[in-house]
Amino acid sequence: MKKRDVYLDNMPLDEAKKIFFETLQSAGALTPRSPETIDVRRALGRITAEPVFAKISSPHYHAAAMDGIAIAAKHTFGADEKNPVRLKEGIHFKYVDTGDPLPEGFDSVIMIEEVHPVGNGEVEIIKACSPWDNVRSIGEDIVATELIVPESHRLRPQDLSALLAGGHVEVSVRRKPVVAIIPTGTELVAPGAELKPGDIIESNSAMLAGFVEEWGAKALVTEKVEDDYEKIKEKVKESLEKSDVIIINAGSSAGSEDYTSKCISELGSLIVHGVAIRPGKPVALGIIGEKPILGIPGYPVSAALTMELFAKPMLCMMQGVPVPEPEKLDAVMTRRVVSAIGTEEFLRVKLGRIGDRICASPLSRGAGVITSLVRADGIVRIPALKEGFEAGERVEVELLKKRQEIENTVVIIGSHDITIDLLATEVKKYYQEMNISSAHVGSMGGIMALKRGECHMAGIHLLDPNTGEYNVSYVKRYLPQKSMVLVNLVRRQQGLMVQRGNPKGIKGIQDLKRSDVLFINRQKGAGTRLLLDLKLKELGISPDEVRGYDREEYTHMAVAAAVAGGSADAGLGIMAAASALGLHFIPVSPEEYDLAIPEEYFNLDSVQKMLWVINTAEFKQKVGALGGYDTRDTGRIVYNS
Amino acid sequence: MKKRDVYLDNMPLDEAKKIFFETLQSAGALTPRSPETIDVRRALGRITAEPVFAKISSPHYHAAAMDGIAIAAKHTFGADEKNPVRLKEGIHFKYVDTGDPLPEGFDSVIMIEEVHPVGNGEVEIIKACSPWDNVRSIGEDIVATELIVPESHRLRPQDLSALLAGGHVEVSVRRKPVVAIIPTGTELVAPGAELKPGDIIESNSAMLAGFVEEWGAKALVTEKVEDDYEKIKEKVKESLEKSDVIIINAGSSAGSEDYTSKCISELGSLIVHGVAIRPGKPVALGIIGEKPILGIPGYPVSAALTMELFAKPMLCMMQGVPVPEPEKLDAVMTRRVVSAIGTEEFLRVKLGRIGDRICASPLSRGAGVITSLVRADGIVRIPALKEGFEAGERVEVELLKKRQEIENTVVIIGSHDITIDLLATEVKKYYQEMNISSAHVGSMGGIMALKRGECHMAGIHLLDPNTGEYNVSYVKRYLPQKSMVLVNLVRRQQGLMVQRGNPKGIKGIQDLKRSDVLFINRQKGAGTRLLLDLKLKELGISPDEVRGYDREEYTHMAVAAAVAGGSADAGLGIMAAASALGLHFIPVSPEEYDLAIPEEYFNLDSVQKMLWVINTAEFKQKVGALGGYDTRDTGRIVYNS
Repeated sequence: MKKRDVYLDNMPLDEAKKIFFETLQSAGALTPRSPETIDVRRALGRITAEPVFAKISSPHYHAAAMDGIAIAAKHTFGADEKNPVRLKEGIHFKYVDTGDPLPEGFDSVIMIEEVHPVGNGEVEIIKACSPWDNVRSIGEDIVATELIVPESHRLRPQDLSALLAGGHVEVSVRRKPVVAIIPTGTELVAPGAELKPGDIIESNSAMLAGFVEEWGAKALVTEKVEDDYEKIKEKVKESLEKSDVIIINAGSSAGSEDYTSKCISELGSLIVHGVAIRPGKPVALGIIGEKPILGIPGYPVSAALTMELFAKPMLCMMQGVPVPEPEKLDAVMTRRVVSAIGTEEFLRVKLGRIGDRICASPLSRGAGVITSLVRADGIVRIPALKEGFEAGERVEVELLKKRQEIENTVVIIGSHDITIDLLATEVKKYYQEMNISSAHVGSMGGIMALKRGECHMAGIHLLDPNTGEYNVSYVKRYLPQKSMVLVNLVRRQQGLMVQRGNPKGIKGIQDLKRSDVLFINRQKGAGTRLLLDLKLKELGISPDEVRGYDREEYTHMAVAAAVAGGSADAGLGIMAAASALGLHFIPVSPEEYDLAIPEEYFNLDSVQKMLWVINTAEFKQKVGALGGYDTRDTGRIVYNS
Repeated sequence: MKKRDVYLDNMPLDEAKKIFFETLQSAGALTPRSPETIDVRRALGRITAEPVFAKISSPHYHAAAMDGIAIAAKHTFGADEKNPVRLKEGIHFKYVDTGDPLPEGFDSVIMIEEVHPVGNGEVEIIKACSPWDNVRSIGEDIVATELIVPESHRLRPQDLSALLAGGHVEVSVRRKPVVAIIPTGTELVAPGAELKPGDIIESNSAMLAGFVEEWGAKALVTEKVEDDYEKIKEKVKESLEKSDVIIINAGSSAGSEDYTSKCISELGSLIVHGVAIRPGKPVALGIIGEKPILGIPGYPVSAALTMELFAKPMLCMMQGVPVPEPEKLDAVMTRRVVSAIGTEEFLRVKLGRIGDRICASPLSRGAGVITSLVRADGIVRIPALKEGFEAGERVEVELLKKRQEIENTVVIIGSHDITIDLLATEVKKYYQEMNISSAHVGSMGGIMALKRGECHMAGIHLLDPNTGEYNVSYVKRYLPQKSMVLVNLVRRQQGLMVQRGNPKGIKGIQDLKRSDVLFINRQKGAGTRLLLDLKLKELGISPDEVRGYDREEYTHMAVAAAVAGGSADAGLGIMAAASALGLHFIPVSPEEYDLAIPEEYFNLDSVQKMLWVINTAEFKQKVGALGGYDTRDTGRIVYNS
């Protein structure tokens, strides 16, 4: 093991931001670089480097504002229905179209609908007009020397038009800051390469570059650099020539491969290393000359968060534009979340409107779980001095999606089934504005979420050992005060998933008590776990006899992955999960998976649309193709209290 | 004059949208075109054409989640402070860094901070661990076959990273619809060309292309086509080869140069021509084969509005994404607005938070006034069956800017002075998040706006004929119940603006009664008009004796433009306006232009920041450079009640 000589600070976020941005400010690093002059027609979205004043007026001549005849108003005085005034073309009037210059000697326009030709090039009018009627006089829109757009203004389509109309062909805009992104790590391989254990796909720099571009700057991703101090230093020096900001990705933790902070210290100065945030703690912030340099952590969620906290405000300041504030809304936490004192945590949540409130359900808190960021609708900040939130507590959420999308989301909480994912994609085909959000907490978890009003429906498969019937008795027992509808989603086959070729020769539940078989279980409250418990009881096997009974996963796919990865020999789950990962499947029991929907939500427009999609032949056909599903009751109301 | 054979419908907006989109739908025109496969790293902002499922799991091997030692958990059982467990490198443990694969035979990781080397390649630990502690097991983030992103999903930076981590190098996205934009009109000239009367700068297509790009499609602007039916038809046919949508700009009114509707009818079918909206009535909507074709009116505000109403939803549907809803907020109208029954009007407004409400002030309603769209913060819809809004009435505003920008706006209503524009740009240099919004309704208009609580301050220059004092007596008389502060912005010179070289030999106010002098006045309530009235009275001249006394403009610049354009011989105004347009200036009177600020707003953070900028030497120096200003009192509190 190499020597570890890096110690991380644990600086409060506000202090870290203050010291970092103040240091950059006084080093001149936040001053916009020299502007560039570009064609107005290519300036959409760019930031003006100076106020732009009109060079010419618009219109630059007195123009007819209507199709009609140009006249001198005095010739119309006295005209009315009884005393029409007759005018001669060429002498008293000329025909003009909208935009034509007002001919010399005329001061107004009568619209064509009010002009009555009487032959011989003569017309009659029956209404007097005033001077300058229906004329767009010089400068009506823009007067030369007037301000068109101020400095630091992001150019929108209408601004381009106004700049051109004001006589500008070119406009001076802020040069985009160039951000070099240096991926480091010997373990990194390019996307598409053959993977060996320990190889990590270099997927972060696409995200970092995406953020940089969204924030108005230009990203320059270098090839990856292996964990070699001299090579990293060389790449930083080379990148300094071509960019305004350097981002080194990964290598910023206190691990044996950390060279970022050393490199920053040697070439410039390290301002902050280690901030009291979760995720993202090992971020390194520094400056070389007048160029900011950021060591962004390697875990993707840490990377995204530290970019948001430090790179985004920095790049906005460098362009002279305000830092956009995220849209916020109030929500109610659905679950208790415990967070460490002294660290400000950024919790990813799913959101949905249930009745008159927005519910926030926490997603995985792992810094390595990029899908938590893909699936997140918002971020809840847990302040450093707060131990977390209780279930039901009001929280403020910073939105990652538009409010409109949150409002159009159907929230399903409960047992996991792959057909829910399929449904989410099918619904999008017919109703682009709709979203389906699902959280996997097991069937009983779903029932409890319904009871607390945190979802529109629960996906459940709960066998009543007394009656052999599915779901109905649970809904009656746990939700007696609610009018409920049960809609069958699928009938499916539960069974044991074992490694390909079934190397341990497992034949059924009875083999789980074998000492050479390592099991992986589902979490408490999962229908699959209840099924296992029932089957064990039928066979007279105690849970203590099953090795791995206490190791829990939250989805069928996670159980399948554990078996496929060799960390377990068997798990109970659905056939579709086994097929997906190429596992051997030993059927144990068929079961009914229903959606339990309170009557009050059943008639919501979005829920009805979703049920309509479930009933399409296409959906059923796709479910059938997954294997292990029976769609004979799919979409049917199987119970209505 | 050419024959006019085009009659416009006046179809209600909802009906026009219904018939247009239904026709497009049944012709297959809204179906997304064939998808294209592109590199994930270039897919930011693109729309997925199909759901994307993971090809590989992430991690694809059991990985150390911490820097530390990999061990078998069973070797740690029983370890505590009193009974440390000693482990030997190579036999009981191996050092691992974050991301390293878990070596064969080990099932967990102990973080390096909890490992105590004791020499001889041995370490001690004082805490037991459980199997799979600090291990990211296969598929913890993404399990192969799992859904990463659904169809019709706009790819964000984090999605790119997840796609790469899930084994995708390429992704299938919707091809961007290609929109041909054809500017027509013999009068159009390219930006930058020398202008003759009647020439119009071709400025619309930059705006139309900007909208198209912002809505996710690709714009293809053709060269301009003159008003020649065959040439326009040829250009449309040629563009049909290269694009999915055709937009013909201008030529859509019922004027003599209208060929758009004829061309649509001949090549395909005209679905709607003429919609009961203001502005934008003459829009033409049609289809050729399965390609939508839009005749967009030539006036820029009409063009922007009809694009928003028809092109935006169409382009969203063609990409399979929901039409973004504008953010809305409630506001109070500051002025009465009368609108024609039977026409749905889209009124541009400025917005600002005054105390506990948002005030909406209408901007110019002219379809040709592009600056009204540049300056607008939002749009108020006046329904077809409503005659308008009363002052003080609650309205719903569709925002064109972010709510954040509205909240950071200082609203100044009152007399116009060029230094207000200058102030707006100077403030942006120091405070990027701040905006200054000004409306020009004259000094008395400003006082009345303060009385009604519609602005933070009023710009006024009101001479008391009895005392010779400026502003104070007006504030006392009209705002007796408010605590007011008056801050001097500038002292300035008022005078007569006459044409260059003073061809009519005007020497002063007394010449305004000459019959060969045509005057242009300011609106009632303008301080400049009050000054004129006082001067006329002093000279014993009656307003009736002044030709043009009744013709009103709302700003100094508009008066200057009228004189420069030759539609008036003289106007009263400030020296800066005369200098800006190269007019001759005859001084009449110096005056004090103050900002009247209620005490309750004086201490607002934004107002204090603005006052700070007024007091900078740089601002005063720039005001001085305009000519005609005296900054000796600039920024000074001249009155505090």
